[in-house]
Amino acid sequence: MYGPGKSPEQCVQIVSELLEHGTGAVLVTRADDDQRKALEAAHGPASTAEAAGHTSMLWRAPEPWYSGNMLVVSAGTADVPVVDECLLALRAHGIEAQRITDVGVAGLHRLLARLDDVMTADLVIVIAGMEGALASVIGGLSGKPVIAVPTSVGYGSGLDGVTALLAMHATCANGVTVVGIDNGYGAACAAARIVRAARGSS
Amino acid sequence: MYGPGKSPEQCVQIVSELLEHGTGAVLVTRADDDQRKALEAAHGPASTAEAAGHTSMLWRAPEPWYSGNMLVVSAGTADVPVVDECLLALRAHGIEAQRITDVGVAGLHRLLARLDDVMTADLVIVIAGMEGALASVIGGLSGKPVIAVPTSVGYGSGLDGVTALLAMHATCANGVTVVGIDNGYGAACAAARIVRAARGSS
Amino acid sequence: MYGPGKSPEQCVQIVSELLEHGTGAVLVTRADDDQRKALEAAHGPASTAEAAGHTSMLWRAPEPWYSGNMLVVSAGTADVPVVDECLLALRAHGIEAQRITDVGVAGLHRLLARLDDVMTADLVIVIAGMEGALASVIGGLSGKPVIAVPTSVGYGSGLDGVTALLAMHATCANGVTVVGIDNGYGAACAAARIVRAARGSS
Amino acid sequence: MYGPGKSPEQCVQIVSELLEHGTGAVLVTRADDDQRKALEAAHGPASTAEAAGHTSMLWRAPEPWYSGNMLVVSAGTADVPVVDECLLALRAHGIEAQRITDVGVAGLHRLLARLDDVMTADLVIVIAGMEGALASVIGGLSGKPVIAVPTSVGYGSGLDGVTALLAMHATCANGVTVVGIDNGYGAACAAARIVRAARGSS
Amino acid sequence: MYGPGKSPEQCVQIVSELLEHGTGAVLVTRADDDQRKALEAAHGPASTAEAAGHTSMLWRAPEPWYSGNMLVVSAGTADVPVVDECLLALRAHGIEAQRITDVGVAGLHRLLARLDDVMTADLVIVIAGMEGALASVIGGLSGKPVIAVPTSVGYGSGLDGVTALLAMHATCANGVTVVGIDNGYGAACAAARIVRAARGSS
Amino acid sequence: MYGPGKSPEQCVQIVSELLEHGTGAVLVTRADDDQRKALEAAHGPASTAEAAGHTSMLWRAPEPWYSGNMLVVSAGTADVPVVDECLLALRAHGIEAQRITDVGVAGLHRLLARLDDVMTADLVIVIAGMEGALASVIGGLSGKPVIAVPTSVGYGSGLDGVTALLAMHATCANGVTVVGIDNGYGAACAAARIVRAARGSS
Amino acid sequence: MYGPGKSPEQCVQIVSELLEHGTGAVLVTRADDDQRKALEAAHGPASTAEAAGHTSMLWRAPEPWYSGNMLVVSAGTADVPVVDECLLALRAHGIEAQRITDVGVAGLHRLLARLDDVMTADLVIVIAGMEGALASVIGGLSGKPVIAVPTSVGYGSGLDGVTALLAMHATCANGVTVVGIDNGYGAACAAARIVRAARGSS
Amino acid sequence: MYGPGKSPEQCVQIVSELLEHGTGAVLVTRADDDQRKALEAAHGPASTAEAAGHTSMLWRAPEPWYSGNMLVVSAGTADVPVVDECLLALRAHGIEAQRITDVGVAGLHRLLARLDDVMTADLVIVIAGMEGALASVIGGLSGKPVIAVPTSVGYGSGLDGVTALLAMHATCANGVTVVGIDNGYGAACAAARIVRAARGSS
Repeated sequence: MYGPGKSPEQCVQIVSELLEHGTGAVLVTRADDDQRKALEAAHGPASTAEAAGHTSMLWRAPEPWYSGNMLVVSAGTADVPVVDECLLALRAHGIEAQRITDVGVAGLHRLLARLDDVMTADLVIVIAGMEGALASVIGGLSGKPVIAVPTSVGYGSGLDGVTALLAMHATCANGVTVVGIDNGYGAACAAARIVRAARGSS
Repeated sequence: MYGPGKSPEQCVQIVSELLEHGTGAVLVTRADDDQRKALEAAHGPASTAEAAGHTSMLWRAPEPWYSGNMLVVSAGTADVPVVDECLLALRAHGIEAQRITDVGVAGLHRLLARLDDVMTADLVIVIAGMEGALASVIGGLSGKPVIAVPTSVGYGSGLDGVTALLAMHATCANGVTVVGIDNGYGAACAAARIVRAARGSS
Repeated sequence: MYGPGKSPEQCVQIVSELLEHGTGAVLVTRADDDQRKALEAAHGPASTAEAAGHTSMLWRAPEPWYSGNMLVVSAGTADVPVVDECLLALRAHGIEAQRITDVGVAGLHRLLARLDDVMTADLVIVIAGMEGALASVIGGLSGKPVIAVPTSVGYGSGLDGVTALLAMHATCANGVTVVGIDNGYGAACAAARIVRAARGSS
Repeated sequence: MYGPGKSPEQCVQIVSELLEHGTGAVLVTRADDDQRKALEAAHGPASTAEAAGHTSMLWRAPEPWYSGNMLVVSAGTADVPVVDECLLALRAHGIEAQRITDVGVAGLHRLLARLDDVMTADLVIVIAGMEGALASVIGGLSGKPVIAVPTSVGYGSGLDGVTALLAMHATCANGVTVVGIDNGYGAACAAARIVRAARGSS
Repeated sequence: MYGPGKSPEQCVQIVSELLEHGTGAVLVTRADDDQRKALEAAHGPASTAEAAGHTSMLWRAPEPWYSGNMLVVSAGTADVPVVDECLLALRAHGIEAQRITDVGVAGLHRLLARLDDVMTADLVIVIAGMEGALASVIGGLSGKPVIAVPTSVGYGSGLDGVTALLAMHATCANGVTVVGIDNGYGAACAAARIVRAARGSS
Repeated sequence: MYGPGKSPEQCVQIVSELLEHGTGAVLVTRADDDQRKALEAAHGPASTAEAAGHTSMLWRAPEPWYSGNMLVVSAGTADVPVVDECLLALRAHGIEAQRITDVGVAGLHRLLARLDDVMTADLVIVIAGMEGALASVIGGLSGKPVIAVPTSVGYGSGLDGVTALLAMHATCANGVTVVGIDNGYGAACAAARIVRAARGSS
Repeated sequence: MYGPGKSPEQCVQIVSELLEHGTGAVLVTRADDDQRKALEAAHGPASTAEAAGHTSMLWRAPEPWYSGNMLVVSAGTADVPVVDECLLALRAHGIEAQRITDVGVAGLHRLLARLDDVMTADLVIVIAGMEGALASVIGGLSGKPVIAVPTSVGYGSGLDGVTALLAMHATCANGVTVVGIDNGYGAACAAARIVRAARGSS
Repeated sequence: MYGPGKSPEQCVQIVSELLEHGTGAVLVTRADDDQRKALEAAHGPASTAEAAGHTSMLWRAPEPWYSGNMLVVSAGTADVPVVDECLLALRAHGIEAQRITDVGVAGLHRLLARLDDVMTADLVIVIAGMEGALASVIGGLSGKPVIAVPTSVGYGSGLDGVTALLAMHATCANGVTVVGIDNGYGAACAAARIVRAARGSS
């Protein structure tokens, strides 16, 4: 459930119905403070991921079923809220993934120190703001599916993430795909589509 | 091999080396007329896909190995050159895919008539210009991996594909991923990453 | 009366004159909180439609006279404030319209479930943010006048509604017309022009 | 039929089918020189409207049926090709409209000299490039449906029509609607939707 | 003196020096609330013009010397703060000008009712947001110097005044010049340059 | 007369009428090669100014009447065609102006060597591409009317003149006004408005 | 250490480690109020530079070692916070530089009064908002390395610094290089790279 | 000498004067075919660097004097023309530099294979199109001056080099500076400023 535009009461009501009548995970994305408080009062504590100004909340996380090796990687601390949202959304799909959050391309040694993790991952989600170069580098290193998430981290010529989005699309690494700005949730859904389809195809 | 910026002689030379020393497919993308003629004179006829002003050329296509059901779908005739480039690049990866090229969202009945094809595909590449709405619709219909390619088809407020690119990223369908403008080749590479990884994971 | 830039006292004064000397409906759009309170204190409760940060207010709604079947349709809950503003402005013109607010193209089944309503409407106002694809789909289904309103719903590459506006203009559905971002009021005025002219021409 | 992306042979073939099996008008928009020659060789002379680099062609124009008073108005000679395309498309719908093509807002006396024509029209299509101001003025004068077409006329800060498109949407005249840049065809389709619906509603 | 970036103490200090050592008018533009309070406490009440979030302040206005007929004209109430800033800056140059603030082009009759004022003015400053069309119309009516000020009034596709700025430059009225967005002060300076030079040349 | 969009025959016809029935100068701007040849064949040689791809042509230049000291200044040779168009348009208004065309701000000594010319001019038209800085410098040096013309000279981040246009509007020199990109003709008209009004006011 | 995205506790912890285990200067950029208070409480007062909404903090400034003549120059008071940040970052590198902060190109006499300082500097950092013209002028005057910093000072067509950034890149002064918007810290790092390399090469 | 805007005769004339009266190198940038032929006919063969549509030409290259280790590095063959222009301009300054032209970040192993060259260079010029990521990586590896040149290589979301320019400014590598799009000449001038100043400072 996407939070913005709904009153706290609407949120509580919709989540109630989902928890009562559904059987799967219930994920609320981009809840504001009022929505969060109302939801916690009504439905008890949730697993959460916080970003500036909103919270993602997860109730009834399913049993993890994914046996592969998925990696969520970002350049620096400022990207961590999007990483957290992405990991929470993956858990809502029953997927546990590893995380690496300090391998910006300007410190290549840190990335090289984690090269094994990158090379052995079955799928990599790359979350990067500013110039988004990490997606090109990872896309060149790994032959597995790579999903890039531009973030609005940075200022000035970063243009709230538009520069990273354009740059990731202009990348010289073939076969990297991109989701929307700050859309960790969308990347998780795309990854879930891929691993579910793979499980089905085996 | 990416054509632009290389002389016809350089193209012939590089392809010669790839054909002699390599064992796999040799794909040249975005060759201009001079490059094409020189390559055909030197290496014989290739499988080709043509778009306005450039040609993709494939020698030594591998045996198809993919047993799944991949679909490349576009809105109208103007998108067909990107579809052709995508299918040729898929063949270079050993993948045969179906094509549907006349299901723009403004003629919803045509899309509905092909609903079975969409719902049974294991992976869908959606190629669309103008407002790119087809990606949202397909992404909502199918739970399988969906890769969207914005095209520079259209004029005026289409902004040479930038509108479609932005629109596909603003889509309300979760888990759709996007590659660069007119980048049918990139979509094919992304699809190959996914189906190879799936084969490996089975 | 357009609220922004006027003091609460100016608003009260202008509305007083309109109520005293005019005979028709009095509509205030985009009133802020101070304007709203001053107007309600002076002129009593109004019919209202609320959006983030402003309110539209209607006094002395005329008797509905429109006997046709007008439809205001949107993709999701986040577009509802613009729908509300549009419906209030239609009422100021003496027009009652139906509403459907949950038929985003990524959930095509929901739209198909309301297909009869769309096909039998005499005029459709489509209100959609993000990529604005709903306008293309409705424009293809219906041969009646279709007016599209891009909304600033969404974030990132939605560019505060500019992406939806450009996308709606790049649409492949012929004869769809567009008004400004979040301009539910403008769409209502455009619809009123059309149905008034039609009444006059019969 | 939209010309771009089709070979001359495809054009001839599609038009043949439309002429043989259909009963209505056949309109080809944005044909290039090769398409035009092939079409005229195969199907005889058509009614045409020319713009820089392409031609619209109409065979089997229907009997005019529209008894109203429709007006297509533009600012200057540079907009005339879009006016011509619009009028030809209207004729394909069986609608004859008046034209006024020299009433730019910088020469207000010329517009005032045609005020009666504007005030008595049942529907006005305004075609204007540069800053697109004519749409605001006409929209304020007439209470009937007004459809604005931004054109790519002008250079520099006109940004190939994007400035006119944005300006028309920022207009202070309520209820003016807009179609895409240079899209005279789209404006004709929108007008046809309106007058057909009006006829049906009488 | 331009306020932003200076502490209230710096403002007081600079104005003190200007008042003590200079002989002419002292104008502070874009003062914030703290600057305003500190300045009024130190230097007594000033003539002021207020806009959202800042104030222009004038001490020691010179005797008006300009005997011509200058006109500052705007489209609507939302542009008034820029009109006020412009008039205050003109007074700092010793120029008294007339004002007309309700002649938007969508209500052409209101403009026509003031036609005499426009035609007899020696110089016209046109202040307009949204699509900025008023500059084209005035520029066509008057053969005298016309200076246009785009304002950030409006929302959505007005792009905070950029649309009006681009549109005013794409105008079809020859010889209209433009200053920056919301820059009523700059227009006043430009007007002062012209009338001072004219006085010198007589 | 603005050339684009008119056939050579139309151009000849309009100029014929202007020469026969009018008494003043006849100026054609932005004529292409065909228009130029037809006009010269019909009306004899004209005074001309050439820019890449078009020519301005002047017949029957009036007697110069302006006794002031007007200056047209540009940064480098690439701006000269716009300077030429501006000077020709001034001559059509009966104004002879001086020219200085090699005083870009990156070579400040060249500008300083011409300081007297700048300081004694009654009106300065500044024509500059790239970053447009010359307008700021001249605007700071001279207290007389300064009209800036951004040019499309330069490439890359010059964005075909949009950067210069935006930069000139963001200038720190108060009272500089700006016309459209490459619009030497518009600057000449603006200058003519100013000096005509000044003559009238003397 | 870059502040944004870190909690006050994380900031304190990271600085603790840097102070304990490192030997060099510790610089925190863009700390918000909470981060600043926590850092000062834990580590005592720092040398600081303040800009709107954030503070740069420096502990354990190294002994100055640079014997050259470096100059940081800006146009006006509004640019001073970026100048301060730049000077503080230079001090963290052991570099003391001169500052001049009131030589905007619109007041050329002020710049000329400081010409000796500019001509004798070994390296110049130019910090300028609005149209960024100062970089062109300084780049033309000095043959030494010149680093330009566009600032987000100004409003309207300044586009939050993007205009200055584009303009500085379109400059006609050869060999001027540019860093990001408001990035005084980056300019300091670039200068440190240059003077360190120069010291090493002597 | 910058070629555009000068006639072949002007070019020959200016170069004649420079060769006769000057003593240093004579460099012509961006000469078109006609200029080139005229210059070679008049002054004999030059050292040249060619890019699509223009040629840089160098006569009388000075004796190399630079004893350092400068490196010009690019991502792929499409960037080579800018590399060539840069190296020719460096030679005009008496500087010989190494070149590496196939180390795009998507093939990190190729870059790592040249790591020694990067780490031992005294100054690195990085020339990269598409997303410009190479500048970030090199800037992180080397502590020496790094100058980045965005190129217009690539298409679609590369926006003719604007994406690379914005991305390079949003880079996470501190102290990297940037010159204009495709401006290999400017980077050479910036490098010459640095190494000349360093020589002077030794």
